Amino acid sequence: MSQLDQVLAKIDSDLDASLARLFEWLRIPSISTDPAYKADCRRAGEWLVADLKGLGVDASLRETQGHPVVVGHAKGAAAPHVLFYGHYDVQPVDPLELWDTPPFEPKIATLADGRKVVSARGSSDDKGQVLTFVEACRAWKAVTGSLPINVTFLVEGAEEDGSKFLPEFIEANKDELKADVALVCDTGMWDRDTPAVTSSLRGMVYEEVKVRCADRDLHSGTFGGAAQNPIHVLSKIIAAIHDENGRITIPGFYDGVPETPTQMLEQWRGLNLTEEEFLGQVGLKHSAGEKGRMLIEQIQSRPTCDVNGIIGGYTGEGTKTVIASEASCKVSFRLVGDQDPAKIAESFQAFVRERIPADCSVEFIHHKGSRALSLPHDFSALTVAKGALHDEWKKEPIVIGMGGSIPVGGDFKRTLGLDTLFVGFGLDDDRIHSPNEKYDLQSFHKGTRSWARILAALAQK
Amino acid sequence: MSQLDQVLAKIDSDLDASLARLFEWLRIPSISTDPAYKADCRRAGEWLVADLKGLGVDASLRETQGHPVVVGHAKGAAAPHVLFYGHYDVQPVDPLELWDTPPFEPKIATLADGRKVVSARGSSDDKGQVLTFVEACRAWKAVTGSLPINVTFLVEGAEEDGSKFLPEFIEANKDELKADVALVCDTGMWDRDTPAVTSSLRGMVYEEVKVRCADRDLHSGTFGGAAQNPIHVLSKIIAAIHDENGRITIPGFYDGVPETPTQMLEQWRGLNLTEEEFLGQVGLKHSAGEKGRMLIEQIQSRPTCDVNGIIGGYTGEGTKTVIASEASCKVSFRLVGDQDPAKIAESFQAFVRERIPADCSVEFIHHKGSRALSLPHDFSALTVAKGALHDEWKKEPIVIGMGGSIPVGGDFKRTLGLDTLFVGFGLDDDRIHSPNEKYDLQSFHKGTRSWARILAALAQK
Repeated sequence: MSQLDQVLAKIDSDLDASLARLFEWLRIPSISTDPAYKADCRRAGEWLVADLKGLGVDASLRETQGHPVVVGHAKGAAAPHVLFYGHYDVQPVDPLELWDTPPFEPKIATLADGRKVVSARGSSDDKGQVLTFVEACRAWKAVTGSLPINVTFLVEGAEEDGSKFLPEFIEANKDELKADVALVCDTGMWDRDTPAVTSSLRGMVYEEVKVRCADRDLHSGTFGGAAQNPIHVLSKIIAAIHDENGRITIPGFYDGVPETPTQMLEQWRGLNLTEEEFLGQVGLKHSAGEKGRMLIEQIQSRPTCDVNGIIGGYTGEGTKTVIASEASCKVSFRLVGDQDPAKIAESFQAFVRERIPADCSVEFIHHKGSRALSLPHDFSALTVAKGALHDEWKKEPIVIGMGGSIPVGGDFKRTLGLDTLFVGFGLDDDRIHSPNEKYDLQSFHKGTRSWARILAALAQK
Repeated sequence: MSQLDQVLAKIDSDLDASLARLFEWLRIPSISTDPAYKADCRRAGEWLVADLKGLGVDASLRETQGHPVVVGHAKGAAAPHVLFYGHYDVQPVDPLELWDTPPFEPKIATLADGRKVVSARGSSDDKGQVLTFVEACRAWKAVTGSLPINVTFLVEGAEEDGSKFLPEFIEANKDELKADVALVCDTGMWDRDTPAVTSSLRGMVYEEVKVRCADRDLHSGTFGGAAQNPIHVLSKIIAAIHDENGRITIPGFYDGVPETPTQMLEQWRGLNLTEEEFLGQVGLKHSAGEKGRMLIEQIQSRPTCDVNGIIGGYTGEGTKTVIASEASCKVSFRLVGDQDPAKIAESFQAFVRERIPADCSVEFIHHKGSRALSLPHDFSALTVAKGALHDEWKKEPIVIGMGGSIPVGGDFKRTLGLDTLFVGFGLDDDRIHSPNEKYDLQSFHKGTRSWARILAALAQK
């Protein structure tokens, strides 16, 4: 039995204990965006430090201006050195009433189609994914006495809050964090049986917009017909963002957006992903995106804009004939290619300001943006990972662009000069950021086995 | 000293006791739209029954399918018989944090310009206004031993919830409620020194709209660019309701809307009400209404539409990259002339349905509508009231159309054959339906005196 086979067997026999560790971590409600959970975030970081120490990793909790960062170092049997990144914080849980079981009481559930899943907030994004790597390291350590290669761990606690202080932490510790390649486990599979490696990631601009009209709420019987209504103003702005073809109308928005390469379009055409198939899983049928683009382009290689939340006026039960004094919304943009987050934020704000009546006002809350990220075509770690994933899943991995934004890849490139291998085992139906988040047991188990194989393959490189 | 002068003097000397009674009533949080306050609504009705009994009125609480109705009868010295209508329920108080003092702890406050006001939810709408009439009756009773004319009281507890069960109550008790004329005290003055009688009232259509797209909340990184976003769908619908000239685009909406009579336009032109003057009091400058119409037309004789509330997606602190599964809004229309509430509700629903993507759905909550109401030009009670109001305020009362909707006037006409005299002492800055509702002490005091004079004038008719 080869060393790798022994490691894989150890992973199989240790699965229950691995899950017990995951459950322990999931019970800590580490919601980074809500100040009420600050101490819980620290506890989730401390939990990982203790767990890594048990693996012989020299791990510690390191302070930032926000939530602390877990950093750990482990010497391996072979020379390659990887920097593994993940995050221990999770999304808020509202609306809580839509959860079938409490979000921080993890349990194994069985879906209607028979799949077994871990149900809890953070089970997929990102605690479950992080532990696939940690458990692979644990199995290697148990079987061989050390990790197969050198590993630096960097697990932050504010990814869901925009990783505000991570870039300066990486900058301040760049010598300590140097490695040959970065590994990030925060992405998804192509489908539940087909692994994927991600070759590009969309960037992000996130703006909150608050429109104020009258200096108080008004009675619509007295002022209706004359007073500006901020809900009308905001609705007109939102309605103007997309034209009838689904294109975004903000001036300069498409500057730096490359046409999808013909070769990639051909590969995608071969996948034959239909609107019915992709959207059917969430109860929809027709794409609302840019006309004349394949669905896979719309979600992977084209920039987008979504209003993520809106509120204004009376939203309780029953009726109230009020004209609100203010209304607000949260708007996010996914960026591709060379789109500049700062320019887009500026152009969006100007677009909104132009549409604010003279006697009304607007306030913006600007959240940190990130550029899109592409990997080099000859990225050797990607080739190695594809081989290891094929060995585990017995299917050719798909190389995809990812719709989501993981800005840390850009920081690794800029500050540490590292390219990043994005491998993850999430599924589109994981309901990350929604009630009833889950992680397939198969993703957790075979994800762990996949990392064990990738580590072995990197060691032989 | 005439009887009337004695009654007026009694009102003056009794003002503190009158205010103490008002405060007692205002302390009962009779929010009719919120089921949590059901018992408080009943208490507010019981309070009035007890108070009226103290006046010798044969009063009782009468059940409906909703909140109970206060009905009382008092025999007067002269033959005319009036049906006095008001309501004891109040608007919700949110957002509570914007109140300077707790909404159900009434107090006398002094505004920056020196005006003394009663500050509390319901102080103006409608408990304060109802008590101007009750206190006038009390003074007549104290001075003369009886009311000057026959009075039937009808004070309901669900006006702010659309008076859902009042029409059937009136229908079921139409013999008991017969009178010569109805009096309603739920309207306003022209300004703080100029009284007004209302000759027309706008009708109402109120619809809630809930748009559903995907069957769950989605991650905008995975589905953004393809999945329908219900906030976008709803915003486009709201943006389409008004055209660039402020006209409502719903097909057939203007059917039955009369042109404002030339004579009335001329009278209104003479008032010279500017946008700066009317909107300046609430921090606005420019009318957002129908272009080419005087401001006073926009708020009194033209139909309008306002979105009174909207909510969808993530509205907490910080960021969340979610595409909501649903978004909803509350929309109200003010009607004039012969506009048909049922047809407009139907036409609006069709307008919305046309704009719902094929794989999304919409649900409506339809609230009871009401037609607009106009009074006959030769309405004698109106002439009588104008004279009495002139005596009290030493200024010619203005005859106005009112922007708000008081559907009970239509019920009185249809079911009881009564025309309604709308006289009230509210001011545009009373913040009814908003935080820090108030009622001017002058409105309460001189309003009570005004009713004493109107009762005397009706007795002599």
